[in-house]
Amino acid sequence: MIDKDRAMTGQARFELFAFWRTSATYRVRVALNLKGVVAEERIVDIDAGEHRSEAYLAINPLGAIPALIDRGAGQSRAPLTQSLAILEFIEELYPEPAILPPDPHGRARVRSLAAMLAADTHPLITPRVRKYLTSQGGFDDAAWRAWQTHWFTTGLQAVEHRLASEAETGAFCHGETITIADICLASILAVLRIFKIEVPAIPTIERIMRSCEAHPAFAKAAPLAQPGAPR
Amino acid sequence: MIDKDRAMTGQARFELFAFWRTSATYRVRVALNLKGVVAEERIVDIDAGEHRSEAYLAINPLGAIPALIDRGAGQSRAPLTQSLAILEFIEELYPEPAILPPDPHGRARVRSLAAMLAADTHPLITPRVRKYLTSQGGFDDAAWRAWQTHWFTTGLQAVEHRLASEAETGAFCHGETITIADICLASILAVLRIFKIEVPAIPTIERIMRSCEAHPAFAKAAPLAQPGAPR
Repeated sequence: MIDKDRAMTGQARFELFAFWRTSATYRVRVALNLKGVVAEERIVDIDAGEHRSEAYLAINPLGAIPALIDRGAGQSRAPLTQSLAILEFIEELYPEPAILPPDPHGRARVRSLAAMLAADTHPLITPRVRKYLTSQGGFDDAAWRAWQTHWFTTGLQAVEHRLASEAETGAFCHGETITIADICLASILAVLRIFKIEVPAIPTIERIMRSCEAHPAFAKAAPLAQPGAPR
Repeated sequence: MIDKDRAMTGQARFELFAFWRTSATYRVRVALNLKGVVAEERIVDIDAGEHRSEAYLAINPLGAIPALIDRGAGQSRAPLTQSLAILEFIEELYPEPAILPPDPHGRARVRSLAAMLAADTHPLITPRVRKYLTSQGGFDDAAWRAWQTHWFTTGLQAVEHRLASEAETGAFCHGETITIADICLASILAVLRIFKIEVPAIPTIERIMRSCEAHPAFAKAAPLAQPGAPR
């Protein structure tokens, strides 16, 4: 439930409206963990339709999860939305440790990899797309699963091709430190596991994911470690 | 056709692999125009399958349009891809006139609006999605058109809601200057017109679009004004 009163009296600068399972919330959680920034998390139970409730629509009229409220910036501001925009915002406010490379070409590469995952792949397998395809598009469960598998495979194998062939790839997607690209990659892999979908031939991605999972910022953000997740 | 030899001897720093109709190419074209940066444009005829040709895959193995090659940065670099990443890159290299606001909250708002269009809306109506739905998803032309109309309407009305209700909206999406949000908005409207799709109840968007269209950077980038476009 959304606890608006407690939000007004809490100590943390940020309030994150979140749900355990969503890929976009996971990205923000990892970035906050990496920077050591505490946000009070408010669960918006999508399965119970809370993102469409009057209480939540008063906070974010679009009903989108995640939403980040910056209480340090006055009460009248709209919440920040869209995970990629929030990641850039967190990076600007808390530059250390950096989650973008120092050079423009490196930043462009990291943002491009992030967009291949968060913009080209993820929007195709969201609940609203599922709803359309199963209610209006004539998709049954098998057709939906084939759709999901197709886009996860297409997106991840394209990223794999780049990671395996580009010289900038290191222990992580870009060199030896965690960037926004790793965060987006891990967010897609987390969803993949929840849906139990197998994508073949992504050894570089699997290697990088092992590096990410060894980091507490990722482990602490794992969907199944969040309040509200199934036991 | 892709003219690799001429590319090596050209004078402009940038080479933009482009196609007249694509929304993502349009975004990059507008940004370059706004900054007064010249790129030699190479047409990759998607309708003729050139993005899947050996010649183009040697340039960008993913076959994605647009791709921007920075010849000022040495020959061995991979092309820059993903329009949002390229827009940020152009902004970093050529800060004036700025296409992002000066403050982190403003930048987060602009990037969020841009992502609602370029990440939440556009990926759903791309040719690869059409191909899947019509070949494997059982969609006929009417079902595809209903799908397109649904996502354009959903995405644009959500943006309209924000633009109409948030105090930061001005002559443009964010205040009185053109930002990445306007560029992404115009790119979606341009595609809408090509497909002759009507989205009701977007008066704020229509007002902002008139401001954009009055600017030569947008007019010069218009899909139908490009080489290769139908007469």
